[in-house]
Amino acid sequence: MKDRPLILITNDDGVEAKGINELTECLLDLGDVVVFAPDGPRSDMSSAITSEVPIKYTLVKKTNGLTIYKCTGTPVDCVKLSISEVLDRKPDLLVSSINHGGNMAISVLYSGTMGAAAEGCIFGVPSLGVSLLDHRPDADFTESCRLGRMVARRILKEGLPAGTYLNLNVSKTDAVKGMKICRQAAGKWVKEYKRSENGAGKPVFWLTGSFENAKPIHPDNDTLALDSGYASLVPCKLDVTDYEWTEQYKDWGV
Amino acid sequence: MKDRPLILITNDDGVEAKGINELTECLLDLGDVVVFAPDGPRSDMSSAITSEVPIKYTLVKKTNGLTIYKCTGTPVDCVKLSISEVLDRKPDLLVSSINHGGNMAISVLYSGTMGAAAEGCIFGVPSLGVSLLDHRPDADFTESCRLGRMVARRILKEGLPAGTYLNLNVSKTDAVKGMKICRQAAGKWVKEYKRSENGAGKPVFWLTGSFENAKPIHPDNDTLALDSGYASLVPCKLDVTDYEWTEQYKDWGV
Repeated sequence: MKDRPLILITNDDGVEAKGINELTECLLDLGDVVVFAPDGPRSDMSSAITSEVPIKYTLVKKTNGLTIYKCTGTPVDCVKLSISEVLDRKPDLLVSSINHGGNMAISVLYSGTMGAAAEGCIFGVPSLGVSLLDHRPDADFTESCRLGRMVARRILKEGLPAGTYLNLNVSKTDAVKGMKICRQAAGKWVKEYKRSENGAGKPVFWLTGSFENAKPIHPDNDTLALDSGYASLVPCKLDVTDYEWTEQYKDWGV
Repeated sequence: MKDRPLILITNDDGVEAKGINELTECLLDLGDVVVFAPDGPRSDMSSAITSEVPIKYTLVKKTNGLTIYKCTGTPVDCVKLSISEVLDRKPDLLVSSINHGGNMAISVLYSGTMGAAAEGCIFGVPSLGVSLLDHRPDADFTESCRLGRMVARRILKEGLPAGTYLNLNVSKTDAVKGMKICRQAAGKWVKEYKRSENGAGKPVFWLTGSFENAKPIHPDNDTLALDSGYASLVPCKLDVTDYEWTEQYKDWGV
């Protein structure tokens, strides 16, 4: 009998977050599911890894077709450790999700959710990150579960090219209009710090701010799709080499 | 009188590391230098940012043409906070370096050094990361300072395209043969965990391992250049969109 697909699920909001648990429920019929996620929030950890201290993991629950572990590491540590040391075979799909909050545009760089998806891709596992543009712990994941499941099924059926992973973001609305294939919006966060004071009266800085698109704004950028009530699907590459530059600036070599 | 170029220097090994201090000395005559670096080691932090707690910074030293600050945040926090709240003008160059240890191949994803360089690029500052393939605290930075300075001067003179930052790695040798323009090597780290036991006899896992190139190995990949005694210069893009995929898989949209 052919094995059922093995689906590895992780996130950066921690194993107890609503987003990861709702998506897990939605994917249970697609294969054997292993959740291997941080033991608490690890947002904004990007592709950070833990090398100065050891990490460990604990079994939370094991039932028919679903095993849940929690881990002291970062999202990327979770992917590395589970695939290297815990799973008995390579997963057929990694889903890092559902994040409480958007990871569109350049936020893909800071996101622990997307760091984990990139890491799955490094291991040759077709990988997807899913994020809902709603930070609330009790956010409504109905639409993001539906779309996440749809893309997960398609990946299981058709695969992804080596070195490419997917970034799905879902706008905060009761009825998403559809899902557009997009590019990562260029731009940056502005007004990023709120100055405050600590107990001793010294200045401290809280990260905040808002995203500002760079011009020209490409009509297929992910922020525009999300602003108009769509979900955005951006394929991301592990290889960040700027090949145009290598061609044009060969004479920088010495 | 025209302002001297403003050069922002940061790293992920902390403000007291040998690498950042030697490079700072080497760049002092190229402009006004501000060092704004983590107050201790922040290796492997990738593009992680600090949002759950506030960050702060402290003046370490101010002399003619050189100001040094230390910051409680990650390398990316250092770039964000210094440009947003501390510097009186936008830097003409950001140098994140010199890292004690290599950041070639996919290590660009995990590296705090390169996270900081990417962040400078987001701010529109021409940005360069420099790493020496030697982890020792007392490593010899002579060759990496020479090449880092050379590339820094060229960036100050010619600039970099928007959205592109540079990753310079220098092999551990007394006499580097030259500097090759390279692509980021594909591949992954293997045998990544050393199993051990904590004080209570429970298993813990230390990150370790070695890098394995993916096949086919492109002759212009950075690991090959470094293995044969050269330095490698890889131009990196902020935009990780896989445009081939967006063209080929348009029908994934709904």
